[in-house]
Amino acid sequence: MSKGRRFQAPRGTRDFPPPQMAVRRHVEAAWRKASIDCGFEEIEGPTFEHLDLYTVKSGEGIVSELFSFTREGGDDVYALRPEFTPTLARMAAAKGRSLALPTKWFAIPVHYRAERPQRGRLGEFLQWNVDVVGLDAPLGEVEVLEPAILALERLGLGPEDVEIRLSHRDAIAGLLKALGVAEAQVPAAFELLDRLDRLAPEEFARRGATLDLDEAAIERLRGLGARRFDLGDGAAPIARALGVDPTLLESLEPLREALEARGLLPWCRFDPGIVRGLAYYRGIVFELHERGGGERAVAGGGRYDGLIALLDGPDLAACGMGMGDVVLSLILGDRGLLGDDDGESLMPVPDAFVVALDDEAASRLPGLVATLRRAGLHVRHSHRATRNLGKLLSEANRCRARSAVVLDAGVANDLATVKDLASGEQREIALGQLAASLTP
Amino acid sequence: MSKGRRFQAPRGTRDFPPPQMAVRRHVEAAWRKASIDCGFEEIEGPTFEHLDLYTVKSGEGIVSELFSFTREGGDDVYALRPEFTPTLARMAAAKGRSLALPTKWFAIPVHYRAERPQRGRLGEFLQWNVDVVGLDAPLGEVEVLEPAILALERLGLGPEDVEIRLSHRDAIAGLLKALGVAEAQVPAAFELLDRLDRLAPEEFARRGATLDLDEAAIERLRGLGARRFDLGDGAAPIARALGVDPTLLESLEPLREALEARGLLPWCRFDPGIVRGLAYYRGIVFELHERGGGERAVAGGGRYDGLIALLDGPDLAACGMGMGDVVLSLILGDRGLLGDDDGESLMPVPDAFVVALDDEAASRLPGLVATLRRAGLHVRHSHRATRNLGKLLSEANRCRARSAVVLDAGVANDLATVKDLASGEQREIALGQLAASLTP
Repeated sequence: MSKGRRFQAPRGTRDFPPPQMAVRRHVEAAWRKASIDCGFEEIEGPTFEHLDLYTVKSGEGIVSELFSFTREGGDDVYALRPEFTPTLARMAAAKGRSLALPTKWFAIPVHYRAERPQRGRLGEFLQWNVDVVGLDAPLGEVEVLEPAILALERLGLGPEDVEIRLSHRDAIAGLLKALGVAEAQVPAAFELLDRLDRLAPEEFARRGATLDLDEAAIERLRGLGARRFDLGDGAAPIARALGVDPTLLESLEPLREALEARGLLPWCRFDPGIVRGLAYYRGIVFELHERGGGERAVAGGGRYDGLIALLDGPDLAACGMGMGDVVLSLILGDRGLLGDDDGESLMPVPDAFVVALDDEAASRLPGLVATLRRAGLHVRHSHRATRNLGKLLSEANRCRARSAVVLDAGVANDLATVKDLASGEQREIALGQLAASLTP
Repeated sequence: MSKGRRFQAPRGTRDFPPPQMAVRRHVEAAWRKASIDCGFEEIEGPTFEHLDLYTVKSGEGIVSELFSFTREGGDDVYALRPEFTPTLARMAAAKGRSLALPTKWFAIPVHYRAERPQRGRLGEFLQWNVDVVGLDAPLGEVEVLEPAILALERLGLGPEDVEIRLSHRDAIAGLLKALGVAEAQVPAAFELLDRLDRLAPEEFARRGATLDLDEAAIERLRGLGARRFDLGDGAAPIARALGVDPTLLESLEPLREALEARGLLPWCRFDPGIVRGLAYYRGIVFELHERGGGERAVAGGGRYDGLIALLDGPDLAACGMGMGDVVLSLILGDRGLLGDDDGESLMPVPDAFVVALDDEAASRLPGLVATLRRAGLHVRHSHRATRNLGKLLSEANRCRARSAVVLDAGVANDLATVKDLASGEQREIALGQLAASLTP
């Protein structure tokens, strides 16, 4: 008989039972450690901001993509944050001239999108943000790409799995002009290039024609967005392959050198189709994609000089990278990099599982368990009434404890038996030595 | 000249620049480690739920305390979560009969309140939740209090700083009846007791009179809420002090024994004034308070058997504890337990700060830094153009690096000088040995 009312999590949000939470913490830990190793300092901000903070940066069009609300009796309109960059820029602006330069910040905030959820794109998701304020291109870009790659490597991915698709808006503008796009039409051509994957060929051709391009030029524009080039030999071979003057691509050279110095070049390809729709990006833009290309972008970023000044702060160079947890987890899962048990094997392992085989032992158990926990050990015990050693040990094995601590008549002499549950080895240990002997 | 538009964080929310974030991570780490050591498994849920999930549990009155919103074009009304228990109960209900018993879950979610912010009570805050499903009183209660105390101890607090104020609704009901409160008036008397701290004496007396209590009984009711009793000697001395039959307090005895077995008794006092307004609590209820008593409760909790069944799950025993970060951080800060520098000393310490003293060294620096970071070391370097060793070392000291790695002419022979920045000791190290020699 159904006695109560059943609720579901809101559409596009997720519950994280322990194994799924272990996956989330595993990814977050790799993100955090890579950030810190690369000298970034962690920050956080509110989960919601004044709605205007987002429209000032992205225009009124963003409002329909946001969850917005007011406080009862208040006039302010708030929105759940769809991204972190406005919060970061607001915090940097608030520091004003006291901000140390460069400032390297990272954050692992929750973000929200009010659109209909799709594969790889949920209503609520985590996104790792890595930002550098006060470094020009290409140094800032390389600084934010370094932890991204370090984290992916530590999660088990290599350049054969994921690639950094880089572009440079100056280089693309040059290529577009070489195709015959008029200066005034360059922004519209950028937008078209950005939508290449999402537009049917006829629609792409129709929009291309509005740029005063002939059929051949439209084909070459489409070709720009469909090709990727090795960056290892510099701009000259790319220019040859595209049939353009190599000086059009010279903005790529300092980037290539900086990527090479950090050992990042094997991950990188020049992708003239990477535009990043967000209007405030400048210069270098990039996305990280699964090499197969089946999923949405794992990460994306670029340069947003000027945003901090827009929020009344100093006029500072800035660039950043955002990596979401949803696509990344799909890629890791597909490759078996999250274990073969949906996260169970990523859960914390108990150092000891304590069992009591008689009443005297049972009365000593809570105090002993408390002492071991106070010593920093992860300790569990059975809540069942059984004194059957076999049943108790199988409970210890189910929670994957490293050792079982068996309390029997020996406790009268302050002794316990410690059984290594992997090797089966047993030792008698004085209770006073138990914490030390169980410490890994 | 102000060029842009200045934004503030929404009222009642916080920005966390790096030192404040280090404080937050310090508290969270203590919460997480204590939970895991005590055998709890971490979960998370959505930041917002269907509004009805909260009204089903707490009644329509809660709506004015919530931030609520809809999705454009959708009918569902959502609310930012004011607490975690409904989400946890929903997740437990969804598991149904497959839920292992007992289930011990913890979470460190962000919560929201739409009311006007006050000291110790913000619009957005973290709350550590520790819950046990499937254990009856008092075992469940002791299971959730154990990690709470373990975390406080590790943060530097002792029973001289914080106390657990415990009560038992059965015991209080007995005491109220002994005062002459009619059975039907017991819930109203509970509510009055719960508001004792917030009501002016005249208002308290006026409301007491509506319970058909005479002046002397009202005074004794007020007295109930103003006294706390050592639990160490059991219920008998408390009953004597209150002038009531000791059988009225017998529900405290099993609790006292269980607290003693885990070593928690020194932290605990019986406080007949602890009621916990939340209507769904049953049996034992508790709050953790600063012993001085100046701040709001650090934590609170109790038993909520029946809630999972209310959400269409099995009828399971359950109890839990919630500890917020706001009051706790005030208490830790007041006692100097967060360092004397607003969190700076809690920030991650670089293992090495690498400096280059000539062009050849500078060209080797990015690759060397990348190699050290890939080895798991936290490594920084200067972004300034200077080759002045003194200036570079003072930058290394400012970020509190453990060692400076000085690259000079020696790099031609693959050598670097490593300087311990605490002791001043210097050693020459082969570049290939650098990672190993810097690993703490």
